[in-house]
Amino acid sequence: MNRGFYSVQLILQNIRQLVTVAARGAFAKSGHAMRDLGVLDDATVLIEDGIIRWVGASSDFHEPSIADATMLDCSELAALPGFVDSHTHLLFAGSREDEFAMRVEGRSYQEIADAGGGILSTVNATRAASKKELKKLGRQRLDDMLKLGTTTVEIKSGYGLTQDDEIKMLEAINELAEEHYSTVVATFLGAHALPPEFAGNADGYVAVLCQRLLPYIAKRKLAAFCDAFCETKYFTVAQTETLFRAALAAGLKLKRHADQLTQIGASKLGASFHATSIDHLEKIDSDAMEAIREAGSIATVLPGVSFFLNYGYPPARQMIDSGLPIAIATNFNPGSCMSFSMPMMMTIACTHMGLTPEEALAAATVNGAAALNLSHRIGSIEVGKEADIILYRIPHYRHLAYHFGVNHVETIIKRGVILEF
Amino acid sequence: MNRGFYSVQLILQNIRQLVTVAARGAFAKSGHAMRDLGVLDDATVLIEDGIIRWVGASSDFHEPSIADATMLDCSELAALPGFVDSHTHLLFAGSREDEFAMRVEGRSYQEIADAGGGILSTVNATRAASKKELKKLGRQRLDDMLKLGTTTVEIKSGYGLTQDDEIKMLEAINELAEEHYSTVVATFLGAHALPPEFAGNADGYVAVLCQRLLPYIAKRKLAAFCDAFCETKYFTVAQTETLFRAALAAGLKLKRHADQLTQIGASKLGASFHATSIDHLEKIDSDAMEAIREAGSIATVLPGVSFFLNYGYPPARQMIDSGLPIAIATNFNPGSCMSFSMPMMMTIACTHMGLTPEEALAAATVNGAAALNLSHRIGSIEVGKEADIILYRIPHYRHLAYHFGVNHVETIIKRGVILEF
Repeated sequence: MNRGFYSVQLILQNIRQLVTVAARGAFAKSGHAMRDLGVLDDATVLIEDGIIRWVGASSDFHEPSIADATMLDCSELAALPGFVDSHTHLLFAGSREDEFAMRVEGRSYQEIADAGGGILSTVNATRAASKKELKKLGRQRLDDMLKLGTTTVEIKSGYGLTQDDEIKMLEAINELAEEHYSTVVATFLGAHALPPEFAGNADGYVAVLCQRLLPYIAKRKLAAFCDAFCETKYFTVAQTETLFRAALAAGLKLKRHADQLTQIGASKLGASFHATSIDHLEKIDSDAMEAIREAGSIATVLPGVSFFLNYGYPPARQMIDSGLPIAIATNFNPGSCMSFSMPMMMTIACTHMGLTPEEALAAATVNGAAALNLSHRIGSIEVGKEADIILYRIPHYRHLAYHFGVNHVETIIKRGVILEF
Repeated sequence: MNRGFYSVQLILQNIRQLVTVAARGAFAKSGHAMRDLGVLDDATVLIEDGIIRWVGASSDFHEPSIADATMLDCSELAALPGFVDSHTHLLFAGSREDEFAMRVEGRSYQEIADAGGGILSTVNATRAASKKELKKLGRQRLDDMLKLGTTTVEIKSGYGLTQDDEIKMLEAINELAEEHYSTVVATFLGAHALPPEFAGNADGYVAVLCQRLLPYIAKRKLAAFCDAFCETKYFTVAQTETLFRAALAAGLKLKRHADQLTQIGASKLGASFHATSIDHLEKIDSDAMEAIREAGSIATVLPGVSFFLNYGYPPARQMIDSGLPIAIATNFNPGSCMSFSMPMMMTIACTHMGLTPEEALAAATVNGAAALNLSHRIGSIEVGKEADIILYRIPHYRHLAYHFGVNHVETIIKRGVILEF
């Protein structure tokens, strides 16, 4: 991103199709409400100081008093809220395209690990990288995501797995949050995998996370959330519970990886802690759905993972029909989903998970914001929210999911700033 | 596309990774040869008058004599042949995103047709559009495809289905071929569907195609190929045979839609006519594979269709293992695959059809060229071929399939012209 153009007052005029995704006071859309996108034809949006001040039909709009307002003609464009990608691992060094090639040739996870692949290869590369190098990689990826319409990104640590390397990652994420146009949210995922130094001693590693890292992270406010990979062969329900108690005590909110590979009660545990979001859910069952709904958590599905690894999708249709609020995120990472394209995730969700284009859009915007506790600020085009608005050269919003594999973005407005490439 | 920069002599210097996909005299790669991409690190390519004149290691390259050669530093870039998209229906008016939404909600083909969807809705919109309007749509799509690295595009008629409208489409395609930077190949697909005017009289429609349209198209050289949708409820094997005899007599070469929905012997018929390519093949059987291999036809698979409609993929792994030369194309059209992204097709081929990234690349370049009878001119970076070369900002060519949903193109060179956006 080179620079941006800022005007105190910005008016988006004669928007051909405005999709507000307005949640009207609710923090997230669930069930049938996910299909209600609040679409207006020939609409106008007034932005002042980066905040949305007026939204409505162009015929109802009266020129504001400030003489030097910037006008943007949108008569050929659709306007939608910026995407909120609420689950990524985008800060990593190294690359795993060789592992991708091995997997499509049918090699097993163990063969790939034996050949130096797998998550620990990314851990090694990320440990070897300096904070400066990581930030350069992260900045480029945030730029590329903005160009695809993503204005808010959650980033997890979890490729360091030592005290110093986890802090290095979190510092890099927080500095990117300061320096980049995107809204960046940091999540501490020290419990991503067991580092080789603690082989056979997961309890010991969790103790280090709880006693050393979490207090330090809390003191320096390096993360908004704590996440854990609660899964067979990773971290048990009991270890995750220990970690979550410590995280809550330290003032962090909770997210979690749950029910990805096996059903061990991970999402139910998350619900019992009222985690802000519970993510993955490929192996969710109806008990877990009920628990998540009662807890008021967001259920985040990651369509790109099932696509990329060619395995079963989470039952998102059933989840929506049972009243759960669903968010969609990319899970961008070098192993299980090498993509940060939210429109591509929407296409996969529609073609392979039975979501309507409307549900996919709500899941990728306002519900993603709710999965980050940010739906009071972003995720929809409503008065009082930050002006994160993407203008697209498409005849209808459904083209975002329908016409896939190409970037339809025409103009990116982030907190009222028109970004230039 | 705004304009291009042309230099009589262009030198691509210090290419970090050059992927020649050289076929070394063969017209197409088959079986194990599909994995041999001819990769060179730190390479140089010399282009003169749009033709590749030298390819090799930078250390072996000696400066040419012409003083004003243009040098392009490629030390951060990978260079690959432009994609050849050998099967598209890109010239259409109208849009079918509503049908997409209905399908993901589980509506049947008949319900969609009753609601005004399906192929006839595109036929109606295309009939209603002027040649000028169609060309404008086509030009924009060819631009967007170039930006994604596709330098050669086959375009079929088949949304007119009257004499005047089929000619209108073919004229538009031929004019785009003249006017656009892309290499455009025209295919006559009058037998795409039975027009309502001939309901119940497919024989009569085929007679019109043979007796009126084909001679006129041949005389004006409006198409290089004749194609037909030989399928249950569309055109029978006997009708297709009649059409193909007339097409051969008129001097056209043959392509065909075969074995998409059912196995009625369509691909075997294509093989018996030595069709240049036989496309779709979702329902191919081993007899048909054998026939295609013996005929020397290219077997073209369309990964985006199975992805978009979420139905079974063609057995491409088995086809390659049995020695068939496979091409990949997008089948870009508003009903069954609304995408013109060749990298996305490669990703789907790798993740869902078991192709290696190498096989997918060969299928998307040199074998696509062979599917258009153009592999003597394009499809690989070899001395004597046209300089259709794409420069990518990726660390390894495998990133094209691996890192999906984003455009990695840095620079587009078409017949030696550096295109600017």
